[in-house]
Amino acid sequence: MSFHRGVRTSGMNDDAMGRFPVPDREDVPEDVLEYIDEESERAGFVPNVFAAFAYKPSHFRAFFDYHDALTEDTTLEREEIEMLIVTVSGVNDCLYCVVAHGALLRIFADAPKLADQLATNHRTADLSEHHLAMLDFAVKLTETPGRVDGDDLDRLREVGFSDEQIWDIGSVVSVFNLSNRMATFADMRPNDEFYTMGR
Amino acid sequence: MSFHRGVRTSGMNDDAMGRFPVPDREDVPEDVLEYIDEESERAGFVPNVFAAFAYKPSHFRAFFDYHDALTEDTTLEREEIEMLIVTVSGVNDCLYCVVAHGALLRIFADAPKLADQLATNHRTADLSEHHLAMLDFAVKLTETPGRVDGDDLDRLREVGFSDEQIWDIGSVVSVFNLSNRMATFADMRPNDEFYTMGR
Amino acid sequence: MSFHRGVRTSGMNDDAMGRFPVPDREDVPEDVLEYIDEESERAGFVPNVFAAFAYKPSHFRAFFDYHDALTEDTTLEREEIEMLIVTVSGVNDCLYCVVAHGALLRIFADAPKLADQLATNHRTADLSEHHLAMLDFAVKLTETPGRVDGDDLDRLREVGFSDEQIWDIGSVVSVFNLSNRMATFADMRPNDEFYTMGR
Amino acid sequence: MSFHRGVRTSGMNDDAMGRFPVPDREDVPEDVLEYIDEESERAGFVPNVFAAFAYKPSHFRAFFDYHDALTEDTTLEREEIEMLIVTVSGVNDCLYCVVAHGALLRIFADAPKLADQLATNHRTADLSEHHLAMLDFAVKLTETPGRVDGDDLDRLREVGFSDEQIWDIGSVVSVFNLSNRMATFADMRPNDEFYTMGR
Amino acid sequence: MSFHRGVRTSGMNDDAMGRFPVPDREDVPEDVLEYIDEESERAGFVPNVFAAFAYKPSHFRAFFDYHDALTEDTTLEREEIEMLIVTVSGVNDCLYCVVAHGALLRIFADAPKLADQLATNHRTADLSEHHLAMLDFAVKLTETPGRVDGDDLDRLREVGFSDEQIWDIGSVVSVFNLSNRMATFADMRPNDEFYTMGR
Amino acid sequence: MSFHRGVRTSGMNDDAMGRFPVPDREDVPEDVLEYIDEESERAGFVPNVFAAFAYKPSHFRAFFDYHDALTEDTTLEREEIEMLIVTVSGVNDCLYCVVAHGALLRIFADAPKLADQLATNHRTADLSEHHLAMLDFAVKLTETPGRVDGDDLDRLREVGFSDEQIWDIGSVVSVFNLSNRMATFADMRPNDEFYTMGR
Repeated sequence: MSFHRGVRTSGMNDDAMGRFPVPDREDVPEDVLEYIDEESERAGFVPNVFAAFAYKPSHFRAFFDYHDALTEDTTLEREEIEMLIVTVSGVNDCLYCVVAHGALLRIFADAPKLADQLATNHRTADLSEHHLAMLDFAVKLTETPGRVDGDDLDRLREVGFSDEQIWDIGSVVSVFNLSNRMATFADMRPNDEFYTMGR
Repeated sequence: MSFHRGVRTSGMNDDAMGRFPVPDREDVPEDVLEYIDEESERAGFVPNVFAAFAYKPSHFRAFFDYHDALTEDTTLEREEIEMLIVTVSGVNDCLYCVVAHGALLRIFADAPKLADQLATNHRTADLSEHHLAMLDFAVKLTETPGRVDGDDLDRLREVGFSDEQIWDIGSVVSVFNLSNRMATFADMRPNDEFYTMGR
Repeated sequence: MSFHRGVRTSGMNDDAMGRFPVPDREDVPEDVLEYIDEESERAGFVPNVFAAFAYKPSHFRAFFDYHDALTEDTTLEREEIEMLIVTVSGVNDCLYCVVAHGALLRIFADAPKLADQLATNHRTADLSEHHLAMLDFAVKLTETPGRVDGDDLDRLREVGFSDEQIWDIGSVVSVFNLSNRMATFADMRPNDEFYTMGR
Repeated sequence: MSFHRGVRTSGMNDDAMGRFPVPDREDVPEDVLEYIDEESERAGFVPNVFAAFAYKPSHFRAFFDYHDALTEDTTLEREEIEMLIVTVSGVNDCLYCVVAHGALLRIFADAPKLADQLATNHRTADLSEHHLAMLDFAVKLTETPGRVDGDDLDRLREVGFSDEQIWDIGSVVSVFNLSNRMATFADMRPNDEFYTMGR
Repeated sequence: MSFHRGVRTSGMNDDAMGRFPVPDREDVPEDVLEYIDEESERAGFVPNVFAAFAYKPSHFRAFFDYHDALTEDTTLEREEIEMLIVTVSGVNDCLYCVVAHGALLRIFADAPKLADQLATNHRTADLSEHHLAMLDFAVKLTETPGRVDGDDLDRLREVGFSDEQIWDIGSVVSVFNLSNRMATFADMRPNDEFYTMGR
Repeated sequence: MSFHRGVRTSGMNDDAMGRFPVPDREDVPEDVLEYIDEESERAGFVPNVFAAFAYKPSHFRAFFDYHDALTEDTTLEREEIEMLIVTVSGVNDCLYCVVAHGALLRIFADAPKLADQLATNHRTADLSEHHLAMLDFAVKLTETPGRVDGDDLDRLREVGFSDEQIWDIGSVVSVFNLSNRMATFADMRPNDEFYTMGR
């Protein structure tokens, strides 16, 4: 029995997104509900992205499987993943991702100012050369994917990233170019909790 | 027994991508090999995107699950999906996706000229108003995701798209903004077969 | 006698900006010190922009006189001024202005989420039509000043802005196109306090 | 008593700007009138920017104080200031500033062709390496302020600019990013005299 | 007597362009008809660009004279000229030129994949360093002509181009910036034959 | 016998362009020399574009034939042609064309201020609605040719342009997109005379 029943999917927010309806709990497949419950238990509330993606369960599963692959089978530190996400989401002007992953970055990096810095301009953030190169690459792959070339990967190697780390960096950037577009296009709204977590 | 054994994963191309190594067959998990074999059987050859994504099996599974969800659980015609992909991939200057999905579009739409038209400029392609509006939306969501607003969705509704069709359109566009970045960044090379299929 | 002597200019931060030296208190003219002391008394700390601009007292005086004219002789609400500033500073990727004026916006508008929304994307912020039109104008005047024309001013009139309000809107946008460039170019660093004020 | 009474503020042009009314002389505060008279005496006519800014006296004072600080307390040559202004104003497509400061540049630099060259394209103007670097910087700070970084300042140091000169360069660029926006937005019209002065 | 009478100008396609009428054969001056007949004899059909430009004979003559000068009095290989044209036309999103010159490139370079590669993204095409530099230059002169400078020409010299070759490269790029605009603006339609020639 | 022998091709300026050598008179074909002499007689000096293009006589002939077709077989007023050229050349940052055609515009339109206005920003020039629409179209066809569509031509028809006038407008814009690139890339220098003619 859980002490947090209030945060289960019964708490799925009707206003989780502005442009599509959030489904009723009874219309959501069991496996999707279980996934949402588990994640909500951890967060203490139902992040709106779960309520939103439940609109189309087959997409829900695919999206979160990809997301989980990125964070669970990775050569990167979790805080590096969140740094990439916040930076890319800032470039793409995505409110949901900047606010929700900003919270995660503050927590995982134990760095209360870093998310605001990266969302605004990674070039003026408090970063090592290593991470500055990583984020320069992320911005280029986001803004002008067709101009990324071998020299860009070489610069990552020069600051110490391995081939698999480079693959993982490119993958996080690519998946959040997906994620930013879904969130902005459906007008997903960040939960109030995310704005202040970890500050 | 198959007549096409030559197209099984034994045919995974070492040059499938320019910037990461293609794994040996013995290093690829069984479920991934099965998926590749099945798809290659259908195509008559091993599309390089399979050999490339096998570099990281967890990403392979997530990527193709998402891809399959888009094409199997959809309110769109398959040719509409391919129209979206070719147009988005043209905007993102992605060689692999333009050439491979150009082939699929020619086949699914039975329209030998449409892929070249969309890859170059959807505004001068032979399109209905309905599909022109769909592709205008796809280009905007690709180029300036943060500027998509409610009016853009209304325009899709005006030309007859349902809410779920709009979700599906946005999803295809978003996933291929992922896909284009992975393919360009890893320098995935289209198989020679794709250049001429369906012409 | 003040209880906040610690926040006087003796508290001018040597790291207020990254690319020019912050002057010693004894090298700063009396009128500039007085202005800084007064403002710091109010804030509870010395905002780094004061320490930074003290580098060149003649520019300090001109900059803050303009700033004070904008906020003291205005037809706009103070929260509208801060909405304009945060939006423009987000477009210009200016860390100092986003963070410092984000704090002021939270306080003046009594709206803890609005600054993060506007800094990311004013199009997905919680706004009235009136303020959305105001911020659309602000973004256009920031991004493509040469394309602003009479129709843009007419749209502001249609949502109820008077001529003098339009002048004041244009002035805030223009001055913060100055301010954003000075702050980014000199690498002015937001004080830690600004990140959390008013949340 | 003046021989140039005709050029006093009695000569304030009703058509000084296209989008806001020019105030009557009797409605303009004394100190503003004095400033205008003095400047007009020098020019031989009332530059329209004075008539325009008189619309809001508090802004008039702040704007011209900043302008005067830039030209009177500076480490730059006056012709360098005007080179910066014309180049920035060309990038921002600002008619008033290109024409009025083009005249000043011709006069201060004693270079009748330089203003047309800089307004069109500083890269093909007759410039020393020193000034080319200065104007490259000005264009970058104007077009993409968030991308200016330490390397950009280092390049200015390499061609011989001191720290205070760099501050002054950044300040002129920043103030004219303000000025260009005010002039274009209010549709300030260059006086006919400016088109031909100094040719 | 010709075996290809069907491809003479009697075959001028009424749908050669979408936005202007194609003239009747009897309204076309004799020298223009002769030129069209001769070119059509060679191609086996009447390329729509001839029917389209016949709308204004004086422009027809000037356009094809320039085109012929580029291909007949040149220091470049014909396949290099077509590589330049396809790349520039891809950047300018010009359907007619991508498809028609894509066919010519396949034939002259005996390279069935190269046109699709260049039209999509010359950076991921199968190219020598020499030709990559040539096409990098072509893209820069197309996208941002005002930013081309002496260093750009030096890079061409470094990979072995002579001065006259550089002039010829710049000329092909410039003429197809004309050609792309005429073809897109008039909505010239590529003949069906071009889509498949040389594959 | 001419009184202006000093302006004949003996006056071809060695510094007519910065990046290619100007040929000696004896190396220039007779027909090209005759054309230059005739034009120089009219101008009173040898415009540098003639000396520059003489570098490659086949291109010289094609370029000036096209230019002459535009001005001699046209439905537009000559001043409209020059308005188009100056506007397009301003967008493309082309010094030679802005300065030389600015002079021609001042003369043909008998409008001493118009060239500076159009080179800076046609949106703030003194224009009729008719010509504003013409120049809006010219800028769009220059900046984003692939986005020009039928609606753009309809807008020209609405303000009274005939089909042939529209063709002629598109042709002038297209040819000067060629011309601007040749002049900037070869670094053609405007003759001093052009800066002041017609002011």
